[in-house]
Amino acid sequence: MSNDLPLSKENILDAAEQVLRRFGPDKTSVVDVARVLKVSHGTLYRHFSSKAALRESVTERWLHQNILAPLKDVTEQFDGNAKEQLRLWLDTLIHSKRSYAVDDSEMFAMYASVTLEAIDMITQHVDQLIGQLARILEKGIQTGEFKALEIEVTARAIFNATSRFHHPAHAKEWQSGSIDQEFASVWDLMLSGISS
Amino acid sequence: MSNDLPLSKENILDAAEQVLRRFGPDKTSVVDVARVLKVSHGTLYRHFSSKAALRESVTERWLHQNILAPLKDVTEQFDGNAKEQLRLWLDTLIHSKRSYAVDDSEMFAMYASVTLEAIDMITQHVDQLIGQLARILEKGIQTGEFKALEIEVTARAIFNATSRFHHPAHAKEWQSGSIDQEFASVWDLMLSGISS
Repeated sequence: MSNDLPLSKENILDAAEQVLRRFGPDKTSVVDVARVLKVSHGTLYRHFSSKAALRESVTERWLHQNILAPLKDVTEQFDGNAKEQLRLWLDTLIHSKRSYAVDDSEMFAMYASVTLEAIDMITQHVDQLIGQLARILEKGIQTGEFKALEIEVTARAIFNATSRFHHPAHAKEWQSGSIDQEFASVWDLMLSGISS
Repeated sequence: MSNDLPLSKENILDAAEQVLRRFGPDKTSVVDVARVLKVSHGTLYRHFSSKAALRESVTERWLHQNILAPLKDVTEQFDGNAKEQLRLWLDTLIHSKRSYAVDDSEMFAMYASVTLEAIDMITQHVDQLIGQLARILEKGIQTGEFKALEIEVTARAIFNATSRFHHPAHAKEWQSGSIDQEFASVWDLMLSGISS
């Protein structure tokens, strides 16, 4: 049942994502993915030792492409001041999560379930996001918009203080009509705390 | 099968809580509770029209006794300044939730599941908590510890900015060794935002 094409990691993840979307995370096995790729089970088990490893890798790529990359652009390419950049970064994070919860609900549900397992991959993803926030804070301190603050600690505090608006466990609450107003109030509170 | 004792709401809730703890929320029916109370199903259905209504009422009483009442004491009877009172209020909320998640895991799981349904009862519970926070903020403005701020809006912002530390959807994260430090950083950020 094997074919001759070399299997790249991207090929495997494409097939895995396709199968996960079709059957759902609970019903997808490594064997199902091997079947789609027309390779032996053994070949695929060399890449993914378990169903959990498969889900984790697909979720990691999805998070990278859909959450981290657009926020990296905001971090590196925004021209306005640090305060506007910080707000845009948070708005981008919050609105991406909110639209994926609705428009890409299969992948969002898998991401939510992987997050609950609190694996290292999620910790690393969050650390990368907090690293981006830290760069924006650093810029704002340099321009004098923000006061002298502990950059890494404050970046993490801002991420944690906005959990309600971007952590997948709160997805149901994002449907509330007052959610934007609630975020605006938390933003005002935080901005007041960091402004010089 | 009925007995002669008048059924008080407290009697019914006691029996319902006992059955819910024994069989779990998914397997407990109104009929099971009627059996424990030795009353007819019809008698009990007059108080609770469904399994969901039963769970909601038991959770409401549990939240009132275990979360709201101790926080009311902090709100009404604390002698120190408003800043210390606000910190004690948040610490009490956070540590109560954290210990019930471990020491009363059946009831905590039921509360977490009722919360996800986002019913009016939970909204009212949260509004009561935010009302307590507002009283502490008001006191702090009067004493000059806090700046002139929109009391209700800021009280809700403080509650929402600390969701990660008290919302039951985050219970797994409370086991992290850095959770207290993470809260301390969010506290510093908020306090910096409200201090005069």
